[in-house]
Amino acid sequence: MYITDLSKAEQIIPEMEGAKDIIKQVPLSKNNGAPVFSFRVFTIKPGGYTPSHKHPFEHMNYIIKGKGVLVMNDEEHPVKQGDFALVLPNEQHQYKNASDNEDFVMICAVPEEYE
Amino acid sequence: MYITDLSKAEQIIPEMEGAKDIIKQVPLSKNNGAPVFSFRVFTIKPGGYTPSHKHPFEHMNYIIKGKGVLVMNDEEHPVKQGDFALVLPNEQHQYKNASDNEDFVMICAVPEEYE
Repeated sequence: MYITDLSKAEQIIPEMEGAKDIIKQVPLSKNNGAPVFSFRVFTIKPGGYTPSHKHPFEHMNYIIKGKGVLVMNDEEHPVKQGDFALVLPNEQHQYKNASDNEDFVMICAVPEEYE
Repeated sequence: MYITDLSKAEQIIPEMEGAKDIIKQVPLSKNNGAPVFSFRVFTIKPGGYTPSHKHPFEHMNYIIKGKGVLVMNDEEHPVKQGDFALVLPNEQHQYKNASDNEDFVMICAVPEEYE
């Protein structure tokens, strides 16, 4: 068993081309003994975004805080605190913060071999 | 891609011995095409609890709302909104709501073969 919160998880600035003003944290992962999947959290600052990319595994997202858009196939799908989103393997996608003054914070769960 | 929220997810009363006043929802799962794992949400009403049980897979939990306790080996570990918890395979565990008047709501993610 392991209990934690975001104040205890290291803040990492990902070196990803096409990303702007994002912070990554990994509160639960194989480092805590989890055999199948990991919970990462991304904070996207106002004006920030994740890279537009795709990968051979799924994301499951839960929006902890703020308002954003999930961009897929040039369409912007709004997401907000309390929403759940699933990105399937090989879907091109990008998250952007949609607020001028509030962070956008989301869980991004992935199979552990991709964390 | 699939975006949803708890107002759209069916509310299920689990038929589980040892459970009291809990509601299950499954916002993201293999039913939406996810290949590896599922996001379920449990709402535990004031006075309610999940069964004390164990299983051969991990849970990852995120506390969306409220205050509760995670009971393991007769020890009560407090958890509250914003906390993350990992229950490893075969650990005996139980969640209880610790509030007299507020629901305790948590994500409980599991490998999809156990949903």
